[in-house]
Amino acid sequence: MKPILGTCYYPEHWPASQWDEDARQMAELGLKVIRIGEFAWSRYEPEPGRFTWAWLDQAIETLAKHGLQVVLCTPTATPPRWMVDRHPDMLARDEQGNERKFGSRRHYCFSHIAYREESVRIARLMAERYAKHPAIVGWQIDNEYSCHDTVRSYSDSACTAFRVWLAAKYHKIDALNTAWGNVFWSMEYDEFAQIELPNLTVTEPCPTHLLDFYRFSSDQVVSYNKLQAEAIRAYTDVPLIHNYMGRTVDFDHYKVGADLEIASWDSYPLGFLVDRSGADSAWQQRFERQGDPDFQAFHHDLYRAVGNGRWWVMEQQPGPVNWAPNNPAPLPGMVRLWTWEAIAHQAEAVCYFRWRQAPFAQEQMHAGLLRPDSQPAAVYPEVAETAREIQQFDDIQPAQADVAIVFDYESCWAWEAQPQGEDFDGFGLAFDLYRSLRRLGVSIDILKPESSLDGYKLVLIPGLLAWPEVLLAQLSSFSGSVLIGPRTGSKTANFQIPAQLPPNISSLDCTVQYVETFPITSPRPLTDGGAVRTWLESVQTTETVLETTVDGQPVLISRGNLRYLAGWPDQEAAQRIFQRLLDDAEIAYSLMPEGVRRRATGSHEFTFNYNATSVEVDGEVMAPAAVRWRALD
Amino acid sequence: MKPILGTCYYPEHWPASQWDEDARQMAELGLKVIRIGEFAWSRYEPEPGRFTWAWLDQAIETLAKHGLQVVLCTPTATPPRWMVDRHPDMLARDEQGNERKFGSRRHYCFSHIAYREESVRIARLMAERYAKHPAIVGWQIDNEYSCHDTVRSYSDSACTAFRVWLAAKYHKIDALNTAWGNVFWSMEYDEFAQIELPNLTVTEPCPTHLLDFYRFSSDQVVSYNKLQAEAIRAYTDVPLIHNYMGRTVDFDHYKVGADLEIASWDSYPLGFLVDRSGADSAWQQRFERQGDPDFQAFHHDLYRAVGNGRWWVMEQQPGPVNWAPNNPAPLPGMVRLWTWEAIAHQAEAVCYFRWRQAPFAQEQMHAGLLRPDSQPAAVYPEVAETAREIQQFDDIQPAQADVAIVFDYESCWAWEAQPQGEDFDGFGLAFDLYRSLRRLGVSIDILKPESSLDGYKLVLIPGLLAWPEVLLAQLSSFSGSVLIGPRTGSKTANFQIPAQLPPNISSLDCTVQYVETFPITSPRPLTDGGAVRTWLESVQTTETVLETTVDGQPVLISRGNLRYLAGWPDQEAAQRIFQRLLDDAEIAYSLMPEGVRRRATGSHEFTFNYNATSVEVDGEVMAPAAVRWRALD
Amino acid sequence: MKPILGTCYYPEHWPASQWDEDARQMAELGLKVIRIGEFAWSRYEPEPGRFTWAWLDQAIETLAKHGLQVVLCTPTATPPRWMVDRHPDMLARDEQGNERKFGSRRHYCFSHIAYREESVRIARLMAERYAKHPAIVGWQIDNEYSCHDTVRSYSDSACTAFRVWLAAKYHKIDALNTAWGNVFWSMEYDEFAQIELPNLTVTEPCPTHLLDFYRFSSDQVVSYNKLQAEAIRAYTDVPLIHNYMGRTVDFDHYKVGADLEIASWDSYPLGFLVDRSGADSAWQQRFERQGDPDFQAFHHDLYRAVGNGRWWVMEQQPGPVNWAPNNPAPLPGMVRLWTWEAIAHQAEAVCYFRWRQAPFAQEQMHAGLLRPDSQPAAVYPEVAETAREIQQFDDIQPAQADVAIVFDYESCWAWEAQPQGEDFDGFGLAFDLYRSLRRLGVSIDILKPESSLDGYKLVLIPGLLAWPEVLLAQLSSFSGSVLIGPRTGSKTANFQIPAQLPPNISSLDCTVQYVETFPITSPRPLTDGGAVRTWLESVQTTETVLETTVDGQPVLISRGNLRYLAGWPDQEAAQRIFQRLLDDAEIAYSLMPEGVRRRATGSHEFTFNYNATSVEVDGEVMAPAAVRWRALD
Repeated sequence: MKPILGTCYYPEHWPASQWDEDARQMAELGLKVIRIGEFAWSRYEPEPGRFTWAWLDQAIETLAKHGLQVVLCTPTATPPRWMVDRHPDMLARDEQGNERKFGSRRHYCFSHIAYREESVRIARLMAERYAKHPAIVGWQIDNEYSCHDTVRSYSDSACTAFRVWLAAKYHKIDALNTAWGNVFWSMEYDEFAQIELPNLTVTEPCPTHLLDFYRFSSDQVVSYNKLQAEAIRAYTDVPLIHNYMGRTVDFDHYKVGADLEIASWDSYPLGFLVDRSGADSAWQQRFERQGDPDFQAFHHDLYRAVGNGRWWVMEQQPGPVNWAPNNPAPLPGMVRLWTWEAIAHQAEAVCYFRWRQAPFAQEQMHAGLLRPDSQPAAVYPEVAETAREIQQFDDIQPAQADVAIVFDYESCWAWEAQPQGEDFDGFGLAFDLYRSLRRLGVSIDILKPESSLDGYKLVLIPGLLAWPEVLLAQLSSFSGSVLIGPRTGSKTANFQIPAQLPPNISSLDCTVQYVETFPITSPRPLTDGGAVRTWLESVQTTETVLETTVDGQPVLISRGNLRYLAGWPDQEAAQRIFQRLLDDAEIAYSLMPEGVRRRATGSHEFTFNYNATSVEVDGEVMAPAAVRWRALD
Repeated sequence: MKPILGTCYYPEHWPASQWDEDARQMAELGLKVIRIGEFAWSRYEPEPGRFTWAWLDQAIETLAKHGLQVVLCTPTATPPRWMVDRHPDMLARDEQGNERKFGSRRHYCFSHIAYREESVRIARLMAERYAKHPAIVGWQIDNEYSCHDTVRSYSDSACTAFRVWLAAKYHKIDALNTAWGNVFWSMEYDEFAQIELPNLTVTEPCPTHLLDFYRFSSDQVVSYNKLQAEAIRAYTDVPLIHNYMGRTVDFDHYKVGADLEIASWDSYPLGFLVDRSGADSAWQQRFERQGDPDFQAFHHDLYRAVGNGRWWVMEQQPGPVNWAPNNPAPLPGMVRLWTWEAIAHQAEAVCYFRWRQAPFAQEQMHAGLLRPDSQPAAVYPEVAETAREIQQFDDIQPAQADVAIVFDYESCWAWEAQPQGEDFDGFGLAFDLYRSLRRLGVSIDILKPESSLDGYKLVLIPGLLAWPEVLLAQLSSFSGSVLIGPRTGSKTANFQIPAQLPPNISSLDCTVQYVETFPITSPRPLTDGGAVRTWLESVQTTETVLETTVDGQPVLISRGNLRYLAGWPDQEAAQRIFQRLLDDAEIAYSLMPEGVRRRATGSHEFTFNYNATSVEVDGEVMAPAAVRWRALD
Repeated sequence: MKPILGTCYYPEHWPASQWDEDARQMAELGLKVIRIGEFAWSRYEPEPGRFTWAWLDQAIETLAKHGLQVVLCTPTATPPRWMVDRHPDMLARDEQGNERKFGSRRHYCFSHIAYREESVRIARLMAERYAKHPAIVGWQIDNEYSCHDTVRSYSDSACTAFRVWLAAKYHKIDALNTAWGNVFWSMEYDEFAQIELPNLTVTEPCPTHLLDFYRFSSDQVVSYNKLQAEAIRAYTDVPLIHNYMGRTVDFDHYKVGADLEIASWDSYPLGFLVDRSGADSAWQQRFERQGDPDFQAFHHDLYRAVGNGRWWVMEQQPGPVNWAPNNPAPLPGMVRLWTWEAIAHQAEAVCYFRWRQAPFAQEQMHAGLLRPDSQPAAVYPEVAETAREIQQFDDIQPAQADVAIVFDYESCWAWEAQPQGEDFDGFGLAFDLYRSLRRLGVSIDILKPESSLDGYKLVLIPGLLAWPEVLLAQLSSFSGSVLIGPRTGSKTANFQIPAQLPPNISSLDCTVQYVETFPITSPRPLTDGGAVRTWLESVQTTETVLETTVDGQPVLISRGNLRYLAGWPDQEAAQRIFQRLLDDAEIAYSLMPEGVRRRATGSHEFTFNYNATSVEVDGEVMAPAAVRWRALD
């Protein structure tokens, strides 16, 4: 596979006279694919039913003329102002019940039926007109679902749709009452029409009420996306794409991904370090201009799973952004490093956001490849160099990793509904274990709970709400090593404690009696060093105990190829545990210097120095932001 | 007196077939009293006017068959969903004006007249049916008033009732204008109907407006409780009980207590340490699995006063709970220690919450005596041991302490309305002084402002809003030592500065010129060591000065048996001051090792080690969580 | 000029029988001017159209009898309760859309037309009655505009007025769409009536939308004030005054000041230190009882500009206040120091707030010159001494400073709309540079962007949104030194990046390629010591570079008399830079000991010791809170 580079372009922001020179320059820089149109509804359809496609025709022609491929987008993330006049109740409501007003973007409720129809209408019209255009190599549907906390709406539309969803799921109200345990506080309902959204309750609502609302909200995104996908699919076979975000777990990306051909995500390493990585301030300071050394990789691996192997970076940070609490510039070399890292994780394309910095509106302080005055931005030569390197590079062969982590969206919602300890977080647990594995230099795949385990030597299953039948079935015949993480199997699908207590694995004599949570500042030390942080289960077991707390509680339990980890290990403990697991599974690894990371494809091994300082790796010095590769035989 | 143990049981959560075995096991464990029914309204009355008492009949019979006594509860903390359909405006509103929706518990406004009637109706129906049952030894009314901040409602019902309450209090609007000082910012009203609730004002409302609203809100709880008490009282003479909470001061518990026979409280030492003790993080870490060493004791003494001598622990934490920011497990031995400590403070009963951990709904992570799979939880043997010990123990003789602290709810509301410094808090001041006294090993009674002082050798009166006539009268003839604390007597009942400046005691020539507040990190050192924190009054006096700041301001003023304390002493200063006071009052004391606490009844002296480490006390080593007792002659 | 002292008095709070003695005592203390009436509407007009002027007649007469001058106030900050009955929609709404209810003060929306008419009505009636009274030397209009965040209202009245304001500004909706860059996210409007207030949008609204709303909100204050000014002006020629606050930048004080004769402000050094100075906790602790050593001076200089040379302290803190998070007492001597410092900055009058501490309502814990029991408060002798000193002092001659800082309100709004880094703040930047200059002992004038630069040797222009033509014109012929600060010239007036990139100065070859922001804990060190904090611009330049970061980025660029500062210097860097600038400009300075500050008038040089300890200055020891002066030749 030969990866390509691209950029995001907004012809509607610039005079048409500039487009040709822009396109020429893009091609000259070595860019291949240009995404356009995702916010341009008011320019497609300035008033209801009146369309002005001519400029878009011309823009696409101009790009095509210079040999550029186009990803065309539906503009449904930004309905025009007249749309709100037509459907005043299309706006979502926040958890406090306030309308989320027009004036920025994503101002719609996924449950509003008429807005769904409007979305399908514009998608169909665009597909009708442009599907056959040879320059168009993909369609992006909408933009960044979930961004600005837009998945869960507390509008009347959402409430009505939630009742319908519940009725479809439970059929009878008694089934719901039983599933939710509504006897608990006399919360029993007489009919579905009595059920309200789980906001503004006096104290916390029933966790199954919450979880079902989170499931419903995710399903609304899935069905909303599917409607547009079907509308476009009727006219074309080119890939359909959505651009996901970092650490957005409030809808099931796997399910959206199942209706599309390619997954992509918008990778902003410096912004995400500050506002989404969860890293402490020392870590943030160390990687201030480089980004978290594992955050991008995790999402690359995750979206490879979401895209069933096909994925892009649709927006790549090229300089300072405008939206994080603080916005430093990438260290020289980092944009190249991020690009190569995506390729090392088997990205098909990396598109820089955006071509030219806009001089107006919300993102005017967001860097592009060009400055607002059309001069090359600081990063421009670095992108040019990267484009040349890729051009000259061998084909990249994909490969399945030896190690996999099962990651499940629904479990994230469950632990959000019931953290039990303030620091417990489903994404955080998976990401922390992923980071510890990465410190050992291994490549990792991320799996859906129902994915095949074939070919893996080591599989981690941390924090999984309930056991899916299909996963249990696979485990029964799986010969690799399995590490089941804390909290896995601790509930039924209805968010109740199962009859057989957690981890609820018939092949392991291991029972969680109770759980303790404690502040991250108050960890429980382990006998062999390191500690358990945040979460510790009190386990009764007759199996072999491999790790204990200093006061003798079992922490790692082993039987055959199964290990059960009864707490959240800190870095030292995790590394010891993983080294032993990798040794057992006969997987090669090597402890990387801090901030150095590695990934192998089927054809190459890449090493990345995320540090702002030089570091020696395998006897050779890597400069700050350096990338090193070697071909594998 | 012979204390008993018990538990909280929810027959409606389990199949009837399990009840007999449950009851048998409870009796075998040594439990005597079982609380049932406080959340079961939807099972008593599944639809308006249709009752299903049969299951409750059977549950009570089953418990009685095994010799167990029953506390039956009115279920008014959890009105069923149909109730909200009948009375949509019965929901409270929060300070932002949002409805506090159905879906958890305590979803009612105390001022809603129709809901008051519904509450009386169900209480009367239950009393009619069960009052004569010989197994029923007590009635609990509602559950945990104030929990989830439910005392103060900003609903229309509350506004209307507040106006009526004000008209009844002031008769004429001019009297209110004068009492509140409404001339201040042209806030004068022309009629009671113009007065609104004191939320959402541009800046802070008049403190008397706030204080009157807080008084009103408390009175609404009192009258609501009294309505149910009267309904049940018409049918039975067994004790009426309410289960209060820790550090809830937003209604006057003494007034609710005056309408009941027994006070009880729900003691969750580990949860309260984190979210209510106010302790700093080092203290929280030290006592993470033991609870604050004074928090339980304070409430034991407080609720003994509220119950006029008769009190229970209605819910005792038996393991990790689900609701604090973090939820560790009690150190082995602590459940026993907490039980004995309650007894040392003269509790009549200690009931563990709950019998069996629920596998569903909000509290599924809350430990019980049994696990959800009906196996004994980790604490079970410890409870069994405690039950045996109590069985074999002598009778406990009650005793009045030598030392008393006057604690007043209304003053807490006043200082909430006008803290003047961000760290000033009425409960916090009283609790801090209580803690310092406890470090000296003395037993303490807590008194209402109008209680008799007879028999006390030392009385503390800290932070009392205004002097009640009855207290002044008592002081004039009291021969023991009196320590009047900062802020006492600083206002009139209408929250104005009195004509004679604070502390406004005619027998003491002492005038507070002004008050200073400062951050807890910036204390004012005292000449003899230690410091004043948070609050310091500038006092003019001709009396003897016993303590001064290093720059010469009087801090402790003395005349005869009266002392006036013009600031909030830190631990070092408080201990020196109290040692001198105890010496003067000829009260024996001894400085306890940190984390060790002591209490004496009329018959025994108990010593408790709250530390997670062993400690030597009076020449003998006490293990972690150890309890020691000796009979007094 | 001979400064005078005064106080704020509330005859309506006290029995008429007390007024004469109060007035006698004021005069005896040496006070000359008494402000009255700003909150007394309910006593002027107890019901609509019924007036009770007799008491006010008598109060003015009583003051006049003792030779006291009067500043009479319109009472529009506190409309009576009946006003809200007449105009229920006159209340402002907060950003969440909640009504800001009656019950404190400032409960009106500046855009409510009927309330504007009511305000003019009462102002006219008062002027009609009292304008000719010889004791009245000034009129204060309203009280503390902006206090309690009251400039920006989200009411329907505001929305309607905003649309009118926009239509008047842009004439055509397309002009607005272009100015705001609404193409960006399909935010284009079809008509002005579609535009809503920029609150509760899904994510941040367009910055020009915000900036226009902030401009509109400021204009509403200006026009509201002007209406009252015109109403009074029709009857009298005595000065009109408003009392501004500390660090309130949400309306353009210069524009309000243009309609009045005298600016005044309410100076609460201890309260502002805690809640407005932005100082870190060590600084707050050091100056806990003295106030920030630069905060008062900055506002003195600012309001001298707002008043076009004429300014007062209308309210001077005389002891502890009631409204800050903590409220310590001024160190003995500080009230005198603050008074002299105002005089050193050329104040015409300093009035202590308030004469007698009120025993009731919101500010009952706010100290006065008298205690509530009418005894002299602790500060009384210090005020008496200060009055005597002033009486005996020479005339103060005003003088223009050598150094000026341009300060612009609109720029503060712009950076509030688009901070780009969480610590960037327009006021904060200007104040920080001002502080660094003050550490060098120089006197400073603050200038409006359009002020004349004549006579200045050094002018600072930090953080100015866009270049006004008039300023550019002045700079072209200005011969003094100019330091242009970071972010200056970075936008057009429509909040777009200008075609010539920032700093957009044709005479300087200097281009900001991009901007970096970073946490205050992560500064970028400079080659010559010190660092840049918060904000750093990446600059391309061919000019002389005077300062660089350690990795070689230009930070201070120089050509002729122009310097461009491309970041926010920390204290060490700022002092080095300013020393060089002062040397170049041949301005005498001397590095002051920390906490010691200096200001010169045309006739005297004053030195102030803000420290709580003695310090040696120019070979002589200054005691804590000491003031030293010497006559200049």
